[in-house]
Amino acid sequence: MAAVSIQPHFLSSTLSVPFLPPPFPASPSSTFLSKTTRLMISSCLSSSGSPIMDPQTKFKEFPYALAPIKTLMLELVSSVETRLGSSLLPCSLPPDVQYYHNSSGSAEATLFVRSGIPTSPVDFILGSWIHCKLPSGGTLNITSLSTYLKSSTEAPNFIIEIIQSTPTSFVLVLDMPPRKDLILYTEYLKTFYEDTELDKHRQRLEKLPEVTPYSSPSLFIRALTSPTGILVRIEAGETTKTEEIIQDHVRPAANEIIKIWLDSCASVNREVGEADKDYLAKRDLITRTKTLEIDLGTSLPRLFGQQVADRVLGVLKGFF
Amino acid sequence: MAAVSIQPHFLSSTLSVPFLPPPFPASPSSTFLSKTTRLMISSCLSSSGSPIMDPQTKFKEFPYALAPIKTLMLELVSSVETRLGSSLLPCSLPPDVQYYHNSSGSAEATLFVRSGIPTSPVDFILGSWIHCKLPSGGTLNITSLSTYLKSSTEAPNFIIEIIQSTPTSFVLVLDMPPRKDLILYTEYLKTFYEDTELDKHRQRLEKLPEVTPYSSPSLFIRALTSPTGILVRIEAGETTKTEEIIQDHVRPAANEIIKIWLDSCASVNREVGEADKDYLAKRDLITRTKTLEIDLGTSLPRLFGQQVADRVLGVLKGFF
Repeated sequence: MAAVSIQPHFLSSTLSVPFLPPPFPASPSSTFLSKTTRLMISSCLSSSGSPIMDPQTKFKEFPYALAPIKTLMLELVSSVETRLGSSLLPCSLPPDVQYYHNSSGSAEATLFVRSGIPTSPVDFILGSWIHCKLPSGGTLNITSLSTYLKSSTEAPNFIIEIIQSTPTSFVLVLDMPPRKDLILYTEYLKTFYEDTELDKHRQRLEKLPEVTPYSSPSLFIRALTSPTGILVRIEAGETTKTEEIIQDHVRPAANEIIKIWLDSCASVNREVGEADKDYLAKRDLITRTKTLEIDLGTSLPRLFGQQVADRVLGVLKGFF
Repeated sequence: MAAVSIQPHFLSSTLSVPFLPPPFPASPSSTFLSKTTRLMISSCLSSSGSPIMDPQTKFKEFPYALAPIKTLMLELVSSVETRLGSSLLPCSLPPDVQYYHNSSGSAEATLFVRSGIPTSPVDFILGSWIHCKLPSGGTLNITSLSTYLKSSTEAPNFIIEIIQSTPTSFVLVLDMPPRKDLILYTEYLKTFYEDTELDKHRQRLEKLPEVTPYSSPSLFIRALTSPTGILVRIEAGETTKTEEIIQDHVRPAANEIIKIWLDSCASVNREVGEADKDYLAKRDLITRTKTLEIDLGTSLPRLFGQQVADRVLGVLKGFF
């Protein structure tokens, strides 16, 4: 198994993101990644061979994910699409953005974006996975789904990300990141985090002996995380146990939280005044701009080459 | 030793506070305290006997603290008073607020408040300790020092709190809680948390096998905590080891952080515009008001009786 111990660093590019889809590792040159990881990522860019795949369906195939991760992700995507289906436009990404890879084929990724129709509070949903062969012979797999609401509604977003470098350990990010300052807006804290009892899922997971709290190396990401956010490292020791934890603990938590998000955030068109709308737009914009500065300039070119990065970024900026 | 496992719950009344001095346990009726703790606190109110002490000097005596905790607290208070001395007014609390106790004498506490002079950015500093005999024969000791800046400056506050229920375990809170939203004000995050390298102290402590991250039961408190905030539970197994950890690890971290606070926050009169001043005043006020609602109404009367609570609260409100 790969001796990579720092996939968590990739979280930096995830939670802070908007601009950067969850599966993209953070800039290898940024403070988010250790030197070792940067070297490992660089190694993904070598060797030869290029996979041939159907870009239209690739995202939902999860060809490299552990079986229970694939099951979970398909359930989550299905929950979102079933509930929001009629208010979501089809994924219209170009095929070579829906699926892309580096020149050697050692790193490949998918993107799946569905925008909300104009009357929907949903801006867009974004799914993706990344798969990168490591020099040690192992692989790095990052699987994620995140949702983004418009500034016409104040509700939190949703994110799940599973970052796995070996079959026996992974980092889990599962959260509804707030879009307002929880100190200044205590009613927001009560509505979305206390009344929904979100914390019980975190508490249950953290009782497992295999689970330890995880701190993102990025202070910005920590500040973005909600007080009930699940950021944990899970070291199971063996693949069967890993799959069991995902199946028996992560899966029910994630399914319950996406249900809370769908019930309390995505399906409720709360009236937001102009001042609040400006506030939300400003806060979202700052988040995105900052992420762009610290991540995108270097990470995509390094992982996939400048040409692929320009192509993917060019399309993504249209959504953010 | 006392079988109390939940002193951490007391944190709720600390970090959220302003209104409530750190050593006061949170409301026994609030969600911050377990039923067991509430019963234990109630037990402090029984039996008879009332200590006779000199209220003018009692705070700095730390008569019940472990030796290295006393040493550390005296160092911190000394650092603050030495640096800010000429800009701090003497402690003018009435004697029966500087030191107070319940009718039986099983719970006692001190308060030490020095306000800043009008031209100082410091609003006030607040030190305190609480000592409560537990029915099991053990004791609960909470020792703290916190500082509060005025809305004319935006810099973070400082807090240290050590909550100890047995000689071998304690919860440590050591932080510079931000006074602005770190997402909306990324420069603030950079200035006070990234550039100061505050996180290295948290990282060092969390490497110790005796140290585990601690989550406050209060989501509001979690939201108030900075991304570099140290909230840990330390289980040392034996008193000697506990003292060693405080001496060798907590003490240097706390001394370095108070130095950062003194250098970067308390001694710098940053120009704050009117809009920012209003923002800071509003945010501080919301914090205080919320804390007042959830804590003070019930905790002080339960711990010290209505008469003592009214006396202490009446004086404290003049500062907040």
